[in-house]
Amino acid sequence: MFDAYNVEGGVSEEEYRKVVKDFGASLISDQLAKRLDHPLVPDLFFAHRDVGKIMDHESGFSVISGRGPSMNMHIAHLLVFRFVRHFQDKFGAFVFLPFSDDEKLLARDLELGHVLRMSYENLLDMLAIGFDPKNTEVMLDLATLKQDVYNLAVEAASNMTLSTVRAALGFTDDMNVGIHFYPAMQSAHILYPTKKYGLPTIVPIGLDQDVFVKLARDVAPKMGLAKPGDILSKFLPGLTGGKMSSSKPETAVFTTDGPKEVKKKIGNAFTGGLPTAEEQRKKGGNPEVCVVYQYLKTFFGVDVRQQCRSGEYLCGDCKKMLTEKMTQMLTTHQSERAKVEKNLDKFAPELGDLKDRILALK
Amino acid sequence: MFDAYNVEGGVSEEEYRKVVKDFGASLISDQLAKRLDHPLVPDLFFAHRDVGKIMDHESGFSVISGRGPSMNMHIAHLLVFRFVRHFQDKFGAFVFLPFSDDEKLLARDLELGHVLRMSYENLLDMLAIGFDPKNTEVMLDLATLKQDVYNLAVEAASNMTLSTVRAALGFTDDMNVGIHFYPAMQSAHILYPTKKYGLPTIVPIGLDQDVFVKLARDVAPKMGLAKPGDILSKFLPGLTGGKMSSSKPETAVFTTDGPKEVKKKIGNAFTGGLPTAEEQRKKGGNPEVCVVYQYLKTFFGVDVRQQCRSGEYLCGDCKKMLTEKMTQMLTTHQSERAKVEKNLDKFAPELGDLKDRILALK
Repeated sequence: MFDAYNVEGGVSEEEYRKVVKDFGASLISDQLAKRLDHPLVPDLFFAHRDVGKIMDHESGFSVISGRGPSMNMHIAHLLVFRFVRHFQDKFGAFVFLPFSDDEKLLARDLELGHVLRMSYENLLDMLAIGFDPKNTEVMLDLATLKQDVYNLAVEAASNMTLSTVRAALGFTDDMNVGIHFYPAMQSAHILYPTKKYGLPTIVPIGLDQDVFVKLARDVAPKMGLAKPGDILSKFLPGLTGGKMSSSKPETAVFTTDGPKEVKKKIGNAFTGGLPTAEEQRKKGGNPEVCVVYQYLKTFFGVDVRQQCRSGEYLCGDCKKMLTEKMTQMLTTHQSERAKVEKNLDKFAPELGDLKDRILALK
Repeated sequence: MFDAYNVEGGVSEEEYRKVVKDFGASLISDQLAKRLDHPLVPDLFFAHRDVGKIMDHESGFSVISGRGPSMNMHIAHLLVFRFVRHFQDKFGAFVFLPFSDDEKLLARDLELGHVLRMSYENLLDMLAIGFDPKNTEVMLDLATLKQDVYNLAVEAASNMTLSTVRAALGFTDDMNVGIHFYPAMQSAHILYPTKKYGLPTIVPIGLDQDVFVKLARDVAPKMGLAKPGDILSKFLPGLTGGKMSSSKPETAVFTTDGPKEVKKKIGNAFTGGLPTAEEQRKKGGNPEVCVVYQYLKTFFGVDVRQQCRSGEYLCGDCKKMLTEKMTQMLTTHQSERAKVEKNLDKFAPELGDLKDRILALK
């Protein structure tokens, strides 16, 4: 279920707790939740390793969050990057945003040009979140790879045996050599702020990607570096009730969707409604299974449990409310996205001509 | 005998011919030797793949020759780089000189600082050969890695299975993941001029490293690139008669050796002399097994076969001659080396502050 290369949706609370235990992570305590002070903790971001310890580090800490740019980003991605920004705003964390575009060539057999165009689109979404350019670094492995990161990957690779990577990821001999090396590159992403600036790192990450953090935690001490911690998130359900997936457009609202698409997608969303309006007015709906209910709560902090249960709000009401709020959110996001495109060089000089360089690719 | 990670010396003519046949390469024909027009062809550089075809390429070709910088360079290395320069001088070949310093961390567990200091020393030796800065590029994987080369390595890696690399190099599961990835990086070195400038490539290389060229030849067509060719060289014997090895100082004259060391090392060299001077005057020496004879011929084009066989020259005479010539050669080389250090930025701006960057490494 939590295979890094094959995730399924529909995970129960019980299963989440079991996995956290199996992973050797901890549920986020009330005390830590209070310290983190974020509306999605602990409902979405629910478990962790070493987060308190890392936040205690005297000279500060860093948060890294990467992106494998095969497709456009959807709204659940925005949640994660907003969460990352929260660490920057509230705790002054240094933020590193590496793109594992190389992994897309290795694991998915995609083309360089496609992957880099996606990287560029994703980069705009990411930076539209509003990171502080003075305390943030961005890197695309295939376009702006830092020498320090490559060297760190080589060092990590020299400390990672093939058996370890095979055991962790289930790779076989018919797979390419690059995919076997990639965990070392991902470790380098994670450990870069620690090596370069002496800042221990927290990685907010989906349960399915936890294995990469574990590999980085294993290798860090061998490189004389502090082990990275992580904050594990649950999976947000897709609009249709199953897994949210970039490759199934009906399951997700994309950051680039216009008002019409948003309306249509939310109109078709899976809810906890009853067969007829009359019946629902009488008996009330079922918010526990309703995607619209969960999105209102997760994205906008609006809890309509009571109105749903009482039959006061029908599904159409909630869908209308979610559509309006989502459209508004995306309008704002898209406007920030357009602004940030003109200021990419503030994050790094080499990003200034990135678009031209990508378009010039054969 | 021709394992990339474990070479032995003392190879017979017959063995060389057999290996070339097994490798699917060809001996250099009289016609090709004439075209190449170099004193060490075909005595030292004796076999090849596709060299004539690549030299026929209408818009030119390139020669790449790398260096794994674990130790100081010795005089046999100079021969190879002089041979590379010959292609530039005579045929206008573009020359690419990549340093596989990353491989030294992966295969030998050396430290970054040590490897980069060695890279720097080796780089000076290499450029002292007199390459044309306008038609030459130099790259240190761990200090001046080109984005194009990394991307090419990822592309090569995505086309190279673990089984292929294992079969070619005999790697096992307890070895690190980086060493399994490295053949893709070496392929990227080899294919860089072809990808970037459309110039097919010739790689002059020792028989023990041939496997890397073969891997690059296998992967090139999958990347839409022309297969690289190679020119295979025999092993030059060490001063003591066995293998020449950087890790055994008595077996090799280093580029940095002073007159005293040169005199001492050549004084102790293995020769084809007889037990007493008197006996040798009468019966003559045996140039076939004599390292001093071979060095005079290989490095300086001086053939003393007749004088040795006739007993006219004793070993002391030849050693004296070789010492003088070698000292003169190294004096010139070291002076060129000092000059080139002041002009590194002519080869690439990023080499200008290389020394400072390396010394600043923790």
